[in-house]
Amino acid sequence: MKSLAIDMDETMADTVKEINRWYEREFGVALSEEELHGKEFRNAVPPGHSGMIKTFLNTPGFFRHLEIYPDAVEVVRELNQKYKVFIVSAAMEFPNSLKDKTEWLGEYFPFLNWKQYCLCGDKSVVQTDLMIDDRTRNFTHLKDAKTYLYTAHHNVAETAYERVNNWKEVAEKLL
Amino acid sequence: MKSLAIDMDETMADTVKEINRWYEREFGVALSEEELHGKEFRNAVPPGHSGMIKTFLNTPGFFRHLEIYPDAVEVVRELNQKYKVFIVSAAMEFPNSLKDKTEWLGEYFPFLNWKQYCLCGDKSVVQTDLMIDDRTRNFTHLKDAKTYLYTAHHNVAETAYERVNNWKEVAEKLL
Repeated sequence: MKSLAIDMDETMADTVKEINRWYEREFGVALSEEELHGKEFRNAVPPGHSGMIKTFLNTPGFFRHLEIYPDAVEVVRELNQKYKVFIVSAAMEFPNSLKDKTEWLGEYFPFLNWKQYCLCGDKSVVQTDLMIDDRTRNFTHLKDAKTYLYTAHHNVAETAYERVNNWKEVAEKLL
Repeated sequence: MKSLAIDMDETMADTVKEINRWYEREFGVALSEEELHGKEFRNAVPPGHSGMIKTFLNTPGFFRHLEIYPDAVEVVRELNQKYKVFIVSAAMEFPNSLKDKTEWLGEYFPFLNWKQYCLCGDKSVVQTDLMIDDRTRNFTHLKDAKTYLYTAHHNVAETAYERVNNWKEVAEKLL
């Protein structure tokens, strides 16, 4: 059975939508899809506002209530029958996210076991046969792995990796 | 630069001493070194007491105040110059341990970066060139890795792996 690493933020969870919600609460205005297109959130806001984003991300509870992308639950349920699935999230920059992330996974993926969770700093310690992730930097160390770049605002200009745009496409390619 | 995974519990941190302290507080008596020799803590206590140990391990704060083994800080500091060091701990069974573990690492190893922490469920997602661990089950999936079994009560009967008995021996073998 091949091993498959699946990322959380901007792959299964709509982290940007939640940042935008918190941003609007703080600054009174949300960013549009057009303003976010092609950018990291922190680079789409005025320079004086970007520091606040790290504060959001390290607030207990922030990662507990993220929306999940459509079809992610059902597709991961099926992937979990065919692959040795690991949920691999580079979460260590924000220690308050760690428990929130385990609880979020427990809520949406009760069929996964805690043995399948991996919260790390740098994914270069992880090797799997396949990986789905929105960050190309998480692919570069992999040996002979099949990679799928999950489309996110910040990666729309990337051309070097096979792409998945939603969980239906993940199902088409991997199931 | 070769990558090196270093375990936390019973490799850098004296988890058993802390369990024993909590056990004594709960049941009025601590286990002796002789009673622990060759055993997991949970198998060294009367059957009715073993369930309490998981409660200890998932109590917030338990993993925050573990004693560190002698010389671990100085040897890891030097290893960190020679290897790409990752601290890899199978912590997910106890979600309340996650933040405690990052704070413990920050206290004793301020020269390590959060990018070097990896808290997982099952270490089979991790590949490094070398690994120091007290659990042989964490070695079996490794490809061409050099492994060092850190001596612990529960593993004294293991004969299949090269062993390190303390951090001075780690230094002799790896530095």
